[in-house]
Amino acid sequence: MASKDEIASFIAKEFPQTRVRLVEAGGMAATVAHEVGPDELRPGGTVSGPVMMATADVALYVAILAEIGIVPLTVTTSLSFNFMRKPSADRRIVGVCRLLKLGRTLAVGEVTLYSEGLPEPVAHAVGTYAIPANRS
Amino acid sequence: MASKDEIASFIAKEFPQTRVRLVEAGGMAATVAHEVGPDELRPGGTVSGPVMMATADVALYVAILAEIGIVPLTVTTSLSFNFMRKPSADRRIVGVCRLLKLGRTLAVGEVTLYSEGLPEPVAHAVGTYAIPANRS
Amino acid sequence: MASKDEIASFIAKEFPQTRVRLVEAGGMAATVAHEVGPDELRPGGTVSGPVMMATADVALYVAILAEIGIVPLTVTTSLSFNFMRKPSADRRIVGVCRLLKLGRTLAVGEVTLYSEGLPEPVAHAVGTYAIPANRS
Amino acid sequence: MASKDEIASFIAKEFPQTRVRLVEAGGMAATVAHEVGPDELRPGGTVSGPVMMATADVALYVAILAEIGIVPLTVTTSLSFNFMRKPSADRRIVGVCRLLKLGRTLAVGEVTLYSEGLPEPVAHAVGTYAIPANRS
Repeated sequence: MASKDEIASFIAKEFPQTRVRLVEAGGMAATVAHEVGPDELRPGGTVSGPVMMATADVALYVAILAEIGIVPLTVTTSLSFNFMRKPSADRRIVGVCRLLKLGRTLAVGEVTLYSEGLPEPVAHAVGTYAIPANRS
Repeated sequence: MASKDEIASFIAKEFPQTRVRLVEAGGMAATVAHEVGPDELRPGGTVSGPVMMATADVALYVAILAEIGIVPLTVTTSLSFNFMRKPSADRRIVGVCRLLKLGRTLAVGEVTLYSEGLPEPVAHAVGTYAIPANRS
Repeated sequence: MASKDEIASFIAKEFPQTRVRLVEAGGMAATVAHEVGPDELRPGGTVSGPVMMATADVALYVAILAEIGIVPLTVTTSLSFNFMRKPSADRRIVGVCRLLKLGRTLAVGEVTLYSEGLPEPVAHAVGTYAIPANRS
Repeated sequence: MASKDEIASFIAKEFPQTRVRLVEAGGMAATVAHEVGPDELRPGGTVSGPVMMATADVALYVAILAEIGIVPLTVTTSLSFNFMRKPSADRRIVGVCRLLKLGRTLAVGEVTLYSEGLPEPVAHAVGTYAIPANRS
């Protein structure tokens, strides 16, 4: 298992461009938040799709790493999104992940995405990750 | 809104072949159960994929009808499944649905599928339904 | 690799309830057809969702077996569907599958579903299958 | 219908951060390409997931606009990805989209993603878009 600090520094190294921040991880779950500023907005004042997609991907990755430790070759094999409501332009995107399965070589989880502080989800994601079989 | 009895009799009429039974519905949620017998099994003693898929589809449909009333032209527009564990051959498949969005013309929900009485999910589904705009 | 006859008899044995018929398989592709009769219809005269889902599942399975031979423990790990048009009540459902990836332990493919003889697809599916690593 | 130039200038305005370029659009299809440079790479030299996701999203959007004209309120309602092979670090990501349905209020399409010039797909996506009913 990896601690919150270990995961945060791994994410900073592995995804240097990311503006996703780790809030908490552990217990087959994780919460992350993506900063929202001018670079994350589309004209009209809505958060861009790739911001929500990156948030979900990192939330799943972090929830898995918190269980299995830092395994860099863990890779996303599928991600599915439903976009449900227009996110707020002035709130962070928060992703709340729950792992549904953590097998030896495959993990599956779901992420509900919110505009921070608002009750109704803006999007929902499900993802699968391949974990290397021989990770010593 | 439709009562549990109204929904159960609508399902029996609309899906005469189904062996899915309504357990409860309401509050943006629903639980259903699919009987498992010889017709639902594959050689080797696992529940067939179509049984799990039908269970998820009905769970979503029922959760929506409990909110909007009996609207027959509500149709499934997408369904996504992750199959995670081999189901038990001698337990019903139970589907627990939570609606994520109930808009005027679109509903989105997720379903976690279990072998009845066992804690770990066997599959997970996400579905979207189109609701007719003029349903007066 | 498995021949068309080997696959057809394996499907008949493995899925004894199925009414899906193998039309052709090979070259990272397959075509199958599902009979449509009273058992496959919903009131109002449309083909039921589970019929389309079973057709897609078998199409993918058959396309994989045609490449790797009869490997019974190959299992569906995910299936995603978009339902696009109401199928015809008096035509078979035809599934045309194309494999996108055939790795050592994972296969990915897509299936376009038609009412036989009509040009516009009624549904589309994408699926992933896990192939046992040691299949001697 | 919108011309290639109209679409390109709309994309530049609507997605000012995007590095996706329109290659061609029309006939229920589109091809786009995403530049790949240091900002698109992860340590180890693979193209980041959000780059592939943005490419698929724009490919679908462009294929739809080429049919219905510039309709800014057309929004992504779902996107599903399968990631199949590690993309090349020194080639553009190319997305080839085919629309499966173009209804009055809903469009569905699929996108196969390649590292430019290589034959095997790196990823595959399916997406749905909501088109405003009154767009006169």
